Amino acid sequence: MVVYPEIHLFGGADLAPDANGWLADAAEPLDGPRVAALAEIAAAHRIWLVPGSLPERAGDAIFNTAVVLAPDGRLVASYRKVFPWRPFESWTPGADWVTFDVPEIGRFGLSICFDSWFPESTRQLSWLGADIVLNLVKTVGDDRAQEIVLAQANAIVNQLYFLSVNAAGPVGAGGSVYVDPDGRVIAECTGAAPAVTFVPIDPDRVRDVREHGTVGLSRLAHQMWPGDAPIHLPAYGGSLTPQRRTDDAAPTPGLPGVPRSGDAPTGGG
Amino acid sequence: MVVYPEIHLFGGADLAPDANGWLADAAEPLDGPRVAALAEIAAAHRIWLVPGSLPERAGDAIFNTAVVLAPDGRLVASYRKVFPWRPFESWTPGADWVTFDVPEIGRFGLSICFDSWFPESTRQLSWLGADIVLNLVKTVGDDRAQEIVLAQANAIVNQLYFLSVNAAGPVGAGGSVYVDPDGRVIAECTGAAPAVTFVPIDPDRVRDVREHGTVGLSRLAHQMWPGDAPIHLPAYGGSLTPQRRTDDAAPTPGLPGVPRSGDAPTGGG
Repeated sequence: MVVYPEIHLFGGADLAPDANGWLADAAEPLDGPRVAALAEIAAAHRIWLVPGSLPERAGDAIFNTAVVLAPDGRLVASYRKVFPWRPFESWTPGADWVTFDVPEIGRFGLSICFDSWFPESTRQLSWLGADIVLNLVKTVGDDRAQEIVLAQANAIVNQLYFLSVNAAGPVGAGGSVYVDPDGRVIAECTGAAPAVTFVPIDPDRVRDVREHGTVGLSRLAHQMWPGDAPIHLPAYGGSLTPQRRTDDAAPTPGLPGVPRSGDAPTGGG
Repeated sequence: MVVYPEIHLFGGADLAPDANGWLADAAEPLDGPRVAALAEIAAAHRIWLVPGSLPERAGDAIFNTAVVLAPDGRLVASYRKVFPWRPFESWTPGADWVTFDVPEIGRFGLSICFDSWFPESTRQLSWLGADIVLNLVKTVGDDRAQEIVLAQANAIVNQLYFLSVNAAGPVGAGGSVYVDPDGRVIAECTGAAPAVTFVPIDPDRVRDVREHGTVGLSRLAHQMWPGDAPIHLPAYGGSLTPQRRTDDAAPTPGLPGVPRSGDAPTGGG
């Protein structure tokens, strides 16, 4: 899979006096010529292609939309950024969480830049069964240090790969960071120079960490047990429950936790 | 305020062959002699005292409960750990999120150890208006590195102080870490030796970060605007809305974001 950062094909927008207007003018529907041309590239090279996100026109709305093209050129997924970087970006916020499956690898979730600052985003993708979250970023911000912490945290609390792909200079600060399900940085791209980074993904690592715990200790995916009362979450008008899940392909929160052995734990909680 | 870590007065439990049974045997109701004695200490020294968490008996249930004693000896708050470290700990899970106010300082939220691994915990406390979260910890785990990441992340995404107070050796690994609302570590206690750390809290820092953004950039508390559609969160059967809030003292998610100036942002999102 070849993955590019947020708004990759429009990086120059930042150099325009009115970036929001420039991007709106460049927006197309997803059935327009731009996505068709990208699909041809994916098919010609027989690759999974995530060409960054694109300005998408849908009626009066302009979304910041990540698209995923399969090796046969099909548009298999599109995700509209739920958390635009307000008040600076004028994107219409998206309303849906999006995942897609890649055979032999796993389920991917889509995330764009500022989404990583809202733990709700990665949490929903995890609950939808994501094993790997692609976070497409374009930032030159002084807060990239915070984003690297958040990339690790999103990986840790959801026990998945979290891949934060930032734009190179001059439109981005680089510093892409690729985190495994234990929260360890397994690859990174320091500095803002353009670069290609190869990130190995092992689907068994996700299953292993969820089954045996983060660094072999904490089994977050097995926290709730059948019969537990729902945990009320007033900020959302909702709850965590042992039962709620979306479909058979989702992970299995709610399964009882089974100690790996009779030994005393070596951790703590 | 003097704060001790999780189960501080019962650290030896880990050395017992049956820690859960040992702690259950030691449990008392909160109106029992143990809390009364702690209240006397708080009153005698005229201090806010968080003596770690205590095993609390309530009917057949045994909770891991943080208590807060005011300088006049009143028990002003108690919080039952919502996320016990399963399957190793046999505490009954708590069901309520708890905050308390300290004049001149701000609103504190209570959190115990493994709670920090569930972003829902700190999020609810933030939504209830917490400016400072006390996370009382007792871990010797190999995952303290992950917890330090999570302490920073919980501070960043909620723009509050997150104070992770871990037990010293031999029952804990130490490594307490104190994080400001930008996610910066402002004090820490490396190593497992017993130590007292003074942590300065500036209530204006919370207000400043929420108003002007993390490192002056990202204004998370102002993300949702009146009229925004709710953001559906299927994992919780709930949503983020501009309107939902708990009471007048809560922060003001839902206020429109107002750019600080007409300048182009120096960050990205």
